[in-house]
Amino acid sequence: MEAVDFFLRLALILVSARIAAEIFARMGLPAVIGEVAAGVIIGPGALGLIGADSIFVLLGNIGVILLLFQVGMETDVGKLVAVGTQSALVAVTGVLLPFAAAYLASEHIFGMTRGGAMFVGGTLVATSIGITLRVLRDLKADRGHVARVVLGAAIIDDVIGVIVLAFLIQYSRHKGSVELLPALKLLGFMAVFLGAAPVIGPAIERLLSRVYGMSRTQGMVSTIIVSLILLLAAASNGLGAPDIMGGFAAGLMLSGNPAFGIKKSGAEKAAFSIAADAEKKITPIGELFIPIFFVMVGASVDLRAIDFRSPGFWEFAVVITAIAMAAKLMAGIWVKGRIRDKIAAGFAMAPRGEVGLIFAKTGLGFRIFDQTTYASVIFVVAMTTLLAPLLLRPLMEEKGPIPE
Amino acid sequence: MEAVDFFLRLALILVSARIAAEIFARMGLPAVIGEVAAGVIIGPGALGLIGADSIFVLLGNIGVILLLFQVGMETDVGKLVAVGTQSALVAVTGVLLPFAAAYLASEHIFGMTRGGAMFVGGTLVATSIGITLRVLRDLKADRGHVARVVLGAAIIDDVIGVIVLAFLIQYSRHKGSVELLPALKLLGFMAVFLGAAPVIGPAIERLLSRVYGMSRTQGMVSTIIVSLILLLAAASNGLGAPDIMGGFAAGLMLSGNPAFGIKKSGAEKAAFSIAADAEKKITPIGELFIPIFFVMVGASVDLRAIDFRSPGFWEFAVVITAIAMAAKLMAGIWVKGRIRDKIAAGFAMAPRGEVGLIFAKTGLGFRIFDQTTYASVIFVVAMTTLLAPLLLRPLMEEKGPIPE
Repeated sequence: MEAVDFFLRLALILVSARIAAEIFARMGLPAVIGEVAAGVIIGPGALGLIGADSIFVLLGNIGVILLLFQVGMETDVGKLVAVGTQSALVAVTGVLLPFAAAYLASEHIFGMTRGGAMFVGGTLVATSIGITLRVLRDLKADRGHVARVVLGAAIIDDVIGVIVLAFLIQYSRHKGSVELLPALKLLGFMAVFLGAAPVIGPAIERLLSRVYGMSRTQGMVSTIIVSLILLLAAASNGLGAPDIMGGFAAGLMLSGNPAFGIKKSGAEKAAFSIAADAEKKITPIGELFIPIFFVMVGASVDLRAIDFRSPGFWEFAVVITAIAMAAKLMAGIWVKGRIRDKIAAGFAMAPRGEVGLIFAKTGLGFRIFDQTTYASVIFVVAMTTLLAPLLLRPLMEEKGPIPE
Repeated sequence: MEAVDFFLRLALILVSARIAAEIFARMGLPAVIGEVAAGVIIGPGALGLIGADSIFVLLGNIGVILLLFQVGMETDVGKLVAVGTQSALVAVTGVLLPFAAAYLASEHIFGMTRGGAMFVGGTLVATSIGITLRVLRDLKADRGHVARVVLGAAIIDDVIGVIVLAFLIQYSRHKGSVELLPALKLLGFMAVFLGAAPVIGPAIERLLSRVYGMSRTQGMVSTIIVSLILLLAAASNGLGAPDIMGGFAAGLMLSGNPAFGIKKSGAEKAAFSIAADAEKKITPIGELFIPIFFVMVGASVDLRAIDFRSPGFWEFAVVITAIAMAAKLMAGIWVKGRIRDKIAAGFAMAPRGEVGLIFAKTGLGFRIFDQTTYASVIFVVAMTTLLAPLLLRPLMEEKGPIPE
């Protein structure tokens, strides 16, 4: 790509995201949905001003990792562990129910092959944590009890989603022979990865504090923190887990929150002030990259691939969307609190995003999906992403989650 | 490129640049040269960990534009105009002398073709403003009299360099028929572009101030300012001028310095505080992108393409390097002040970078350069870039430029 093309497209992404976010915010809709809508409009499905698989996907990946870093920095591990059981129950229910229901509906109502039906089910497994969290943050509800349970559950079902995808790819390649060991290994890695982050955090903070003190050049904070985030994302990927897990782990390390009740020494408190400075420096970088991610989520929805006049398309899309919403709603039953909180948690889990789209693309790649099924599945992902925040907003706004 | 590859390479660029910059700073060498050296080492010429023409070139281009934006923000147009005559004289001398001397030496001593000799001359025309300014900034000498003259001259010779390149490309294609009109048109555009920036600056600041006030979403400052910079860079490119000119113009607009002595109203002062906030938010973004540019400058030097045992290579490289240094040194004569300041200005103008490398690559592309000449020319560019800061440093440090 020529430099000038790159500049123009990047500016187009940033400006259109900004304008759409403002319009949506003024209409009382979540700003993030505006950014996704901007991506749909300028993406290859409509105006075709940007491509769906390009340098901007990579830049958007940095954005979503930085988003998870910020989330990690604000996560209090002690409180996350406190809601761990609820999160795990929500996650497992939110994986099993939509997978089973969508699989059964696809095979028995819509007559799909077993492989195709399983891929449809897989699409509905993972919550799009980025969209959910941005919505909660827009509503200033990202620190409450519901948000913590949902965050934990979304992390868990993202991991399960990746494992399910690995299984389905094996299934598609070998027709039935699936290895259990790699999946269990991955699960073990993840537990170590996330468990270790808050424990080694203080040591990392002390190290960074010493490096900053020795530095004779400018710009140390931005580059070293961003590098740490990128390396942990790559490490996470190397272990077979989603990249975003690395960003989250980096945030946990630098969160400055006491890990498992361990009190901080004076040196650790000094290091924490450096971590706070890091957060301040990373914020503008995140503000630049994060909208790129959501625009690219929108840009990967190809409106042209959908035949809106086909009744089969609508039946499939409506049924699967209903399953997608209802199944996650029922998963919210495990959240402790009022009915309102259970419903809010269910809707918060509803958006499917990146992982769902990866399922859809993989299904297309293996020729398990035809173009119509592919388009329908993408439509379902988009609908969950659009419906969830609309349903969530009145619940969270009218009366917030249980105060801490 | 896979996301994980991208993360690892970006982290490699940032970390290696940071380590090399620290080592150079401790050895008393300019940090920026450390970053370039890091690029040589990890680039395709040595370890081959990153490619020379990749996504990172584009990200580096953002970096150099942000660098020029920061320079523009700190530029006082009134003072720049005050040194305009000196800058113009330095620039024109610094273009004519090295071009003529290198052309004559290449054609008559080294027996090159007329076209090849002119391309060698063209390589020496443009000062690498990015490297010069970073060196001056590292020495905290980027606001003095010498720095202002050099900045003005470097901007002017960059423009002349681009015009010369356009001429040489026409010459190579049409064997002698060169159109004067487009070149003059470009010159006119540039004058309008840079002249208008500080005049319309206050209006832009007022507009931004109003937009910020209306905003209901987060991250407005980072995205809008970066977009403005990108759009002006693209506009500059569209007019046939270098991209970096747009970043500089954006900086001039938001510099908050009175343009041509026009006093500010109260509203403009309020707007300026927003511009100051913008600078604070752009700084971490610049700290992330700017090192990428310098690493990529290093990565484009291919050590393997140089046959270090050929005597012809060394004769050519040494003679042309000497011409490159001496000619810019003589251009410094126009700087008002002590001999020390004239010499400092000359050395500050000596580094050739991006534009020089574009000449070299274009020469190779038109098969006007063979591989040896190409390697020699790149070596000369690298030598000017390495020598200039080394020579400049003692001059600037022992005793600073004339105080304002």
